[in-house]
Amino acid sequence: MISLSGIKPTSTPHIGNHLGMIEPAIALQDEYDCRYFIADYHAMTTVHDAAKMREYSHGIAAYFLAFGLDPKKSIFYRQSDLPQVTELMWILSCVTSMGLLERAHAWKAAKDRGNEGAELHGLFAYPVLMAADILIHDADVVPVGKDQVQHVEMTRDMAERFNFTFGETLKLPQARYSETLHTIPGLDGRKMSKSYGNTINLMYPPKKLKQQIMSIVTDSTPIDQPKDYANCNVYKLYKLFATPEQVREIEEKYRTPGFGYGHAKLELYNVLMEKTETPRKIYQDYMDHPDLLEDVLRDAADRARVKMDEVLERVRVAVGYRSRFAR
Amino acid sequence: MISLSGIKPTSTPHIGNHLGMIEPAIALQDEYDCRYFIADYHAMTTVHDAAKMREYSHGIAAYFLAFGLDPKKSIFYRQSDLPQVTELMWILSCVTSMGLLERAHAWKAAKDRGNEGAELHGLFAYPVLMAADILIHDADVVPVGKDQVQHVEMTRDMAERFNFTFGETLKLPQARYSETLHTIPGLDGRKMSKSYGNTINLMYPPKKLKQQIMSIVTDSTPIDQPKDYANCNVYKLYKLFATPEQVREIEEKYRTPGFGYGHAKLELYNVLMEKTETPRKIYQDYMDHPDLLEDVLRDAADRARVKMDEVLERVRVAVGYRSRFAR
Repeated sequence: MISLSGIKPTSTPHIGNHLGMIEPAIALQDEYDCRYFIADYHAMTTVHDAAKMREYSHGIAAYFLAFGLDPKKSIFYRQSDLPQVTELMWILSCVTSMGLLERAHAWKAAKDRGNEGAELHGLFAYPVLMAADILIHDADVVPVGKDQVQHVEMTRDMAERFNFTFGETLKLPQARYSETLHTIPGLDGRKMSKSYGNTINLMYPPKKLKQQIMSIVTDSTPIDQPKDYANCNVYKLYKLFATPEQVREIEEKYRTPGFGYGHAKLELYNVLMEKTETPRKIYQDYMDHPDLLEDVLRDAADRARVKMDEVLERVRVAVGYRSRFAR
Repeated sequence: MISLSGIKPTSTPHIGNHLGMIEPAIALQDEYDCRYFIADYHAMTTVHDAAKMREYSHGIAAYFLAFGLDPKKSIFYRQSDLPQVTELMWILSCVTSMGLLERAHAWKAAKDRGNEGAELHGLFAYPVLMAADILIHDADVVPVGKDQVQHVEMTRDMAERFNFTFGETLKLPQARYSETLHTIPGLDGRKMSKSYGNTINLMYPPKKLKQQIMSIVTDSTPIDQPKDYANCNVYKLYKLFATPEQVREIEEKYRTPGFGYGHAKLELYNVLMEKTETPRKIYQDYMDHPDLLEDVLRDAADRARVKMDEVLERVRVAVGYRSRFAR
C-alpha cells in the first residue's frame, strides 16, 4: 500500500506541527510504502524569495530526518526535483471544471481573507497540483487532517473524470483521516499557530528556545501557594513530552508551595532539550552540510521518478501523446 | 531574432487557415530563427480522444512540411514532447493574478458560449501555458492575428511580474501583428470556418475535394447569359490561387455565354489540384509513414530542449529550486 504525504516548506516547524503532523507522518513509515515530499512547488504561492525557499526546504528535510524519517525505508523527495507532476497537472486541468475548484474550502477562505493581488492563479489551481502529486504515485492512501479531506475528494473526482473520458488509467486514492490530538496550546494559551506568533520551535538554538519557553503566559498565583497544574500552559506542554513518571513528579511539585512558574518553565526546557538531544545533533549536522541533504533528496528523486514515469506513460498513451518508452 | 508560432491540432486545415495563418507562418522561416510547435497540450482542452489527438497532430505536422516548412532551417516540434513548459507554467501561475486571466477575451467568450461543464480549468489557465510556451524560448517576436494580441500582452505582464519579484530572468516578447488578408469566403459565401461547415480542405482526397467545390453556392444566372464574376464565390476562391494570366482568362469566360458555374468549379478544382500536386504527395507520404514524422519531431524536440533547459535553469535558480546543471 502506497501512502503519500506532502509537507510545505514555509517556515520552521513548531510544536503544533510536530505533534499534529510530523510525528504521526513519520510513524507511518513502518505501516506503508511511504512517499513524502517537500512541497516546494506549492510553496511558490507564498514564498517569493530564493534564499528562503532553499532554507525552508533544507530545514524541513533536516527536520524530518532528525526525527527519524528513514530515507532508505521510504522515499523522501523534493517536489521540484521531479517536474513530471506539472505535466500531469496540466492534463488534469483539462478534465477539471472551474466549479470544482471554486468550491474548494481553502480557495474560498483565501478569497475571503485577501485582496485581489493575493488571488494568485497558483492558489486557485493548487488542488489540481495536489491531485497530480497523489495520482502520479498510484497512491492508495493519503493521510490527512480534517481540513484536507476535501482535497482527496477532489483528487478522486479528477481521476474519475479522467478515467471516464480516457478509460481506466488512474488509481483512486483513499483519505486516511486521523483525528488530531487535543489542540496544542501556544505561549498565550491559544492554539499554537505561526499566525498568532505564539509558537515554540524545537529546533531553535537553545537560547532562543529558552526565551520562547520563558514567555509562556501563566497566572499570578504567588510562589508560596500551591498551583493548579491542570490549567497551566507550562504543564500542558510538559505533559506532551515528559514520561508519566516525570508528569507525576511535576504535579506533586505544583502542589508544593515554593515551586514557581519559573521553575516549571525550566523543567519544560530541560525535558525538551533532553528529548531533542539526538535530533538536534542530526538536524544541525544536515544544516551545516546541505550537500548531504542534497544527496538524500537526489537519491529519493531517482527512486520516485521510476513510478512517476510509469504512471505518466499510461496517461500519455491514454490521451494520445507519444509514448516515452516505445522506440 | 527568435520567433515562435503555435498551431493547435484540432482538425484538418481548410483554405481559410491555409491563407490566413499557415502560409504567412511558413514564410517567416526566411526572416527569423523560427520555432513552430504543434500545440497538443492546448488541444487537450477540446480533443478528448487519443486516436484523434494522434491523427490531428500528425496531420498538422505533415501539412506544414508539405507546404514547405523546412525542418532543418527552423525548429518544428510537438509541444507534448517537451513537458518542460508545464513546469514553467506552474511557476508563472504563482505570479499571475486571477483578475488577469478573468479578463482574457477568449475565456470570456468561452464562458458566454458554454455551460458549466464546458468551463474547464484548462481553458481558463490557457494563457499561462501560452506564456510559458513563449517565454521558455526567450522569443523576441510572436506573429499573431488580431484576436491573439492580448495573449502576448498577458505574457509580457507575467514576465514583468516575475522579473520584478525574482530579478531580471525572462525576456519580454513583442507581438508581430499582421493584418490578415481579406476574409476567405466559404462554400456559402460567409467567412470560411469549421463551425459553419462551409470549408474547403486542400489536403482532402481528390474526390472529396471535388465534392466540396461542387457544392459552392452560386446564383441562378442561366448558362447562356454572361456572368458577374466579381460577385461569384467560385471566382473569389479561384483568384486566390490562380496566376494573373489565369484570372484574366477566366474573367473573359465569365463574360462569355455558354460558360456555366459547373465549368468554373471544374477550373477551380483543376487549379487547386495543380497547385497542390507536390504538397499532396509529400503530405500523403508522411501520413503513410508516421515514423518519418516522428523522426522529424523528435529531432526538433532535441534541438528545442537545449534552449528550454537553459531558460528553465535561470528560472529555477531565481526562485530557489535546485540547479539542474550544477554538480
